[in-house]
Amino acid sequence: MSNPVVLALTAGEPAGIGPELCLQLALEARSAGVVVVASGPLLEARAKQMNLAVELRAWQPGDSPEMEAGLLSVLHVDGCANHEPGTLDTGSGAYVLRTLEVAANGCLSGDFDGMVTAPVHKGVINDAGIAFSGHTEFLQELCGVDRVVMMLATEELRVALVTTHLPLKDVSAAITPERLTQVTRILDADLKKFFGVARPRILVAGLNPHAGEGGHLGREEIDTIEPTLEALRAEGISLTGPLPADTLFTPHWLDQADAVLAMYHDQGLPVLKFQGFGRAVNITLGLPIVRTSVDHGTALDLAGTGRADAGSLHTALKVGEQMARCRKSAIEETRS
Amino acid sequence: MSNPVVLALTAGEPAGIGPELCLQLALEARSAGVVVVASGPLLEARAKQMNLAVELRAWQPGDSPEMEAGLLSVLHVDGCANHEPGTLDTGSGAYVLRTLEVAANGCLSGDFDGMVTAPVHKGVINDAGIAFSGHTEFLQELCGVDRVVMMLATEELRVALVTTHLPLKDVSAAITPERLTQVTRILDADLKKFFGVARPRILVAGLNPHAGEGGHLGREEIDTIEPTLEALRAEGISLTGPLPADTLFTPHWLDQADAVLAMYHDQGLPVLKFQGFGRAVNITLGLPIVRTSVDHGTALDLAGTGRADAGSLHTALKVGEQMARCRKSAIEETRS
Repeated sequence: MSNPVVLALTAGEPAGIGPELCLQLALEARSAGVVVVASGPLLEARAKQMNLAVELRAWQPGDSPEMEAGLLSVLHVDGCANHEPGTLDTGSGAYVLRTLEVAANGCLSGDFDGMVTAPVHKGVINDAGIAFSGHTEFLQELCGVDRVVMMLATEELRVALVTTHLPLKDVSAAITPERLTQVTRILDADLKKFFGVARPRILVAGLNPHAGEGGHLGREEIDTIEPTLEALRAEGISLTGPLPADTLFTPHWLDQADAVLAMYHDQGLPVLKFQGFGRAVNITLGLPIVRTSVDHGTALDLAGTGRADAGSLHTALKVGEQMARCRKSAIEETRS
Repeated sequence: MSNPVVLALTAGEPAGIGPELCLQLALEARSAGVVVVASGPLLEARAKQMNLAVELRAWQPGDSPEMEAGLLSVLHVDGCANHEPGTLDTGSGAYVLRTLEVAANGCLSGDFDGMVTAPVHKGVINDAGIAFSGHTEFLQELCGVDRVVMMLATEELRVALVTTHLPLKDVSAAITPERLTQVTRILDADLKKFFGVARPRILVAGLNPHAGEGGHLGREEIDTIEPTLEALRAEGISLTGPLPADTLFTPHWLDQADAVLAMYHDQGLPVLKFQGFGRAVNITLGLPIVRTSVDHGTALDLAGTGRADAGSLHTALKVGEQMARCRKSAIEETRS
């Protein structure tokens, strides 16, 4: 086996379940080097409070991260104002974003092979006077890319979205040839780069019920989607569709595909989360770095109780590790 | 066990797989009395061509339908122009609609306890010069009701829709208090009447991603859906929501519910068909009669090959039988 990949893990909102999920994973040995990017005193306090036998070790660039059970490498970030589970504090807003910056910059500089994010609390960051609409947009700006793609994945299914957090009535107008082209190219390129799929086979959903039924139930398929897919096929991308979303998620189609491209949030994600309940991971494609995330929130009510389920974080780390390894070997192959 | 229920089964498009599915089910004994409403000669021809050992028996109102393996009761309808699998003929358009009329009128008069429909081909009926937009709308008009509700169900999950075959961009405007109120009342009433659920617990999806996230991702939840649900709760209907559609279809919510009400086609049906692949049944609520249907099309390419799967028709008959039995016992209780 080659050198372990090194993943930055941001602990997210201090009042949420992020810090304890990071500690919980340190109770077992890991196959990847994980460096938690967070306040050291916060992690100390949470470990003590929850009686978790984890020894924290300060990490700095160049160090080999701890991988043994009971040991956890930490890259300390200053400025955490609250250590109490369940109690939000606007004083920690800037700190939370700094953990993301540190992790992302470490990925860009090569200190890390990828980053995994525990949940943040958008509301408290905005209440702190800092405009913040989510991890994805923050990382997009930090990395200076025009377009990123949200993909959720389980071991069996991958669903990427053309549009994400838009009111439903605005979705049709947002499905432009430009957007669909960018998103599809990113999905195709990143399935190759991060997942080692030589020639990704992508199923594309239509926008309307029954994919418009020949124009009877909407014309976006005919006017926009079909011509755009045709042009993308001419670039060599393997696309099937536009398909009716309600029959797309059946073995006949899924068995011969590497990913599904849904036109909007609630067309694709209900199936994915139904299929992979508690084991889904959120992946940002289109970045120059590997980034995965849990698919749940801060769960303030569970913080400190020991009842939070680390399943999604485990999956996010596992997928992040696979993606980072795949990218590394592609880079090494190019070099050799 | 009480008297068997008697179900009319329309064989649908003569060139499709409907006629042979009807014959296939007659190869085994049934727990319900099934009367196929179709052209007798068509069924004779298909049975001969496919070498299916089924003896057809003419049925008329008042007769006990055959239920033994190898015997099938048929209520003959004239006018079928084509007997050849795979070959559409506009000459049969009026015949196909007549089978629906005969079955529905038989339900209204009490000859049948419910009807189950095999697939029709909308295109060829319209090409025959007869305006026809689907079984559901046809039966709605025939029964003279203002509003019907499309519900798909498997043994584990029921999903009803507020809007059905609309272009996506028109969905938001169609979610009016009036429509939402009518649909919810029908769903609640029919879960009681046809499914024997004493106090139906209904999960309602929001329209927008994350159910609008407090107005950040659309205001329909705040302006329309929440006040309407509140008024319906005051009528005694048990409603939870509006919930984000992507987390609604998880055990936390589904385990404590009898049905899901989705706002539109591709929000609810992809999950249902993923979950119940090949075993989903389409149910029309809001009619004075029981009506279920297969969830697939005419499959002209499979007709006559013997490769068509009767799974969905079996489920449609089974659910139709359960609904009819439930309705009968409710009526008998009322009388006694």
